[in-house]
Amino acid sequence: MKIAVLPGDGIGPEIIAQAQRVLDVLRQDGLAIETEEAPLGGAGYDAYGQPYPDVTQKLCREADAVLLGAVGGPQYDTLDRPLRPERGLLAIRKDLNLFANLRPAILYPELANASTLKPEVVSGLDIMIVRELTGDIYFGQPRGIAVNELGEREAYNTMRYSESEIRRIAHVAFGIAMKRNKKLCSVDKANVLETTEFWKEIMIDVARAYPEVELSHMYVDNAAMQLVRNPKQFDVMVTGNIFGDILSDEASMLTGSIGMLPSASLDQNNKGLYEPSHGSAPDIAGKDLANPLATILSAAMMLRYTFSQEAAAQRVEGAVKTVLAQGYRTADIHEAGCQKVSCSGMGDAVVRAL
Amino acid sequence: MKIAVLPGDGIGPEIIAQAQRVLDVLRQDGLAIETEEAPLGGAGYDAYGQPYPDVTQKLCREADAVLLGAVGGPQYDTLDRPLRPERGLLAIRKDLNLFANLRPAILYPELANASTLKPEVVSGLDIMIVRELTGDIYFGQPRGIAVNELGEREAYNTMRYSESEIRRIAHVAFGIAMKRNKKLCSVDKANVLETTEFWKEIMIDVARAYPEVELSHMYVDNAAMQLVRNPKQFDVMVTGNIFGDILSDEASMLTGSIGMLPSASLDQNNKGLYEPSHGSAPDIAGKDLANPLATILSAAMMLRYTFSQEAAAQRVEGAVKTVLAQGYRTADIHEAGCQKVSCSGMGDAVVRAL
Ligand SMILES: CC(C)[C@H](C(=O)O)[C@@H](O)C(=O)O
Ligand SMILES: CC(C)[C@H](C(=O)O)[C@@H](O)C(=O)O
Repeated sequence: MKIAVLPGDGIGPEIIAQAQRVLDVLRQDGLAIETEEAPLGGAGYDAYGQPYPDVTQKLCREADAVLLGAVGGPQYDTLDRPLRPERGLLAIRKDLNLFANLRPAILYPELANASTLKPEVVSGLDIMIVRELTGDIYFGQPRGIAVNELGEREAYNTMRYSESEIRRIAHVAFGIAMKRNKKLCSVDKANVLETTEFWKEIMIDVARAYPEVELSHMYVDNAAMQLVRNPKQFDVMVTGNIFGDILSDEASMLTGSIGMLPSASLDQNNKGLYEPSHGSAPDIAGKDLANPLATILSAAMMLRYTFSQEAAAQRVEGAVKTVLAQGYRTADIHEAGCQKVSCSGMGDAVVRAL
Repeated sequence: MKIAVLPGDGIGPEIIAQAQRVLDVLRQDGLAIETEEAPLGGAGYDAYGQPYPDVTQKLCREADAVLLGAVGGPQYDTLDRPLRPERGLLAIRKDLNLFANLRPAILYPELANASTLKPEVVSGLDIMIVRELTGDIYFGQPRGIAVNELGEREAYNTMRYSESEIRRIAHVAFGIAMKRNKKLCSVDKANVLETTEFWKEIMIDVARAYPEVELSHMYVDNAAMQLVRNPKQFDVMVTGNIFGDILSDEASMLTGSIGMLPSASLDQNNKGLYEPSHGSAPDIAGKDLANPLATILSAAMMLRYTFSQEAAAQRVEGAVKTVLAQGYRTADIHEAGCQKVSCSGMGDAVVRAL
């Protein structure tokens, strides 16, 4: 199991260090895990002048999986667009063909108070958002800023999906629905956008191969409402890159604890990049304050999806549940009556629980 | 004051009837209000085979303002795309150049329980979302579904904004911010989309004419999160058509009572179309169950924005507050201890309060 580890920027190195300790334990207990680090994002720019340097690309292409901390920081905001940290993230997704982004939004019972929603609305929340990650308006051509035929400046981007792009993400989503409650909601704006009308058509076609799955359709504006009104109506949701960007962030915030939420971005062969759903939090970087659990849970997803090590994945997830039950909390999820710990202190607790 | 009244579909006719009664009272008390009805959406299709029939277009072009119920219904779902009800809505917006969509998200203290969010998170919520309504990926060319050069079917749409389109919505948003708390948040995805990078650039440029307004910028995914995490951080938000569609629906659902929320869509000269933020609710149509207050409050917005009749607008809004304080509730906002009324019963109460 060859893992490329990309600490990235901000709190990235701190949270990755705790995930590395978890992998160390598993390695000592017999899993054949090899890790090697390389820079991405701002760290890539600092070291090699590129957010996705050649050394990083080479390492990631050769690895079976990638574990990423987070990228971005204010010191890179003034760089030219192609040099900015998030370009590294977009580049690695495209380069490795990581078209299937899985973003769970799970409310841990111990953290129910952290949500801004009423307990009865969110308790037991467990949504899986499947977001297409290498197509749509993120990568569509043509794009740019130019002077138009009237002599006025204008800017444009292209939303675009081919049939095969939609088919392959549909199969991933139906596959996941089959392993869960067999309910899949496809989100579109088919009443306005041809691209998503086409998306809906292909979803309906792929559904014929999964007769057990109940497929529903929802407009993206309604989905944004329904996530607030009654999020527990959803089990698996599938949508395009830009709508998925918005809805998965909204859904994760329903839990009130995005410091807990992992994510996976997979290619056709279950090679994947795993990273926490939260960002690089430059404001608390280097202070040993960050919550490493989303990164540790991302490592668990990696064990499950790329390496099919279900037992090891559950062992890690079980350890996270244990430390929550024991009352350990980093600052972001702390409440009265619990024990506040640092990032490394949380790492200690997880290692003990393992 | 010449008002084109478009009842539309579903509950449209019922809620419009109650708003008409409010206008009748104002007319009796001396306001020179003239109304004339025409069909839009499914009703337009039924009467003339078009969702935005010529008679409706003529009436709306000649009127000073348009009051709309709602459009859409399942019986029209199988029509060809250009004939569907929502096409009528898109057509009238474009035809009348209604580029500025104002969507307040206000939590009425009496209805605080209706929200799925904790009271402390939403009490006092009062956000104004300014959504650009005649540009962006809604109307951008090219668009369609076609076979590409590889022989595969694909679909595409174009996000597009010209400098002047962004400038004029920016001025509307800054103008509104000046009348409120002088805080404006512009929502974009400038880290990925050139169109919104350009949007941000123009916002910053227009800001120089409004030195008193504090302009901030937020990525759309983060905005979707922040609306859930801490909605009261926002006062006025401005964004493009598609992001505005999603965020304004999310924001309105934070209140838990979208049956209360009006909207205005204005042109350059404050001619406007006014409609409730909710839809046509085919499931309860014709049952005298709908909440007419959003439509009545839309009429109040019309008095304010198009006719500069601030006193009359406040009189209507005051009557709505009175009926809420008196405990009258339609089914959608009913709770124990309140008096449940029908759509027309709520109209009665408002007329009495006036
Ligand atoms: C940083 C940004 C380019 C990225 C995206 O929009 O995909 C992020 O928001 C995410 O969701 O991973
Ligand atoms: C019905 C639909 C075309 C419309 C839109 O997307 O603009 C609606 O959602 C709205 O927000 O008024």
